[in-house]
Amino acid sequence: MPYLARIYVTPKPGVNDPQGSAILGGLKSLGYGGVERVRAGKYLEVNLDGVSSAEEATERVREMCERLLANPVIEDFRFEVVKA
Amino acid sequence: MPYLARIYVTPKPGVNDPQGSAILGGLKSLGYGGVERVRAGKYLEVNLDGVSSAEEATERVREMCERLLANPVIEDFRFEVVKA
Repeated sequence: MPYLARIYVTPKPGVNDPQGSAILGGLKSLGYGGVERVRAGKYLEVNLDGVSSAEEATERVREMCERLLANPVIEDFRFEVVKA
Repeated sequence: MPYLARIYVTPKPGVNDPQGSAILGGLKSLGYGGVERVRAGKYLEVNLDGVSSAEEATERVREMCERLLANPVIEDFRFEVVKA
């Protein structure tokens, strides 16, 4: 059964986020003075097959996040799994 | 009124995605043979103030995406705006 996982990886609160800071600076220099904070993370779409249930897909994706897709020291992740 | 925008920037369909390809290769070498496709994009959280309505916040964020946050030649974007 094919599944699609949508994965969101974000810097943990308090962790330095140089990409977010650079974007904030860019927005301010374009005149967007009302922007107060930018946090930059990753958005991943992963298509997987060869699993027999949404539960198995969820377990597989959680493991991928912990092993490769997110750095648990500085990043949080969350995801949703849907039938593809 | 403070608002939070959650912004998703993704490579357009058909556009080469080297980061997604690298992640796919990494997952396969970790033994996840069932992974068929990975697309890598950006996830941004932008806090903004100084706007008077959700409509104004939405219009502002769309403009930011078009001017700075996404490259319209190779990327799509979507976002949602909520009260912060």
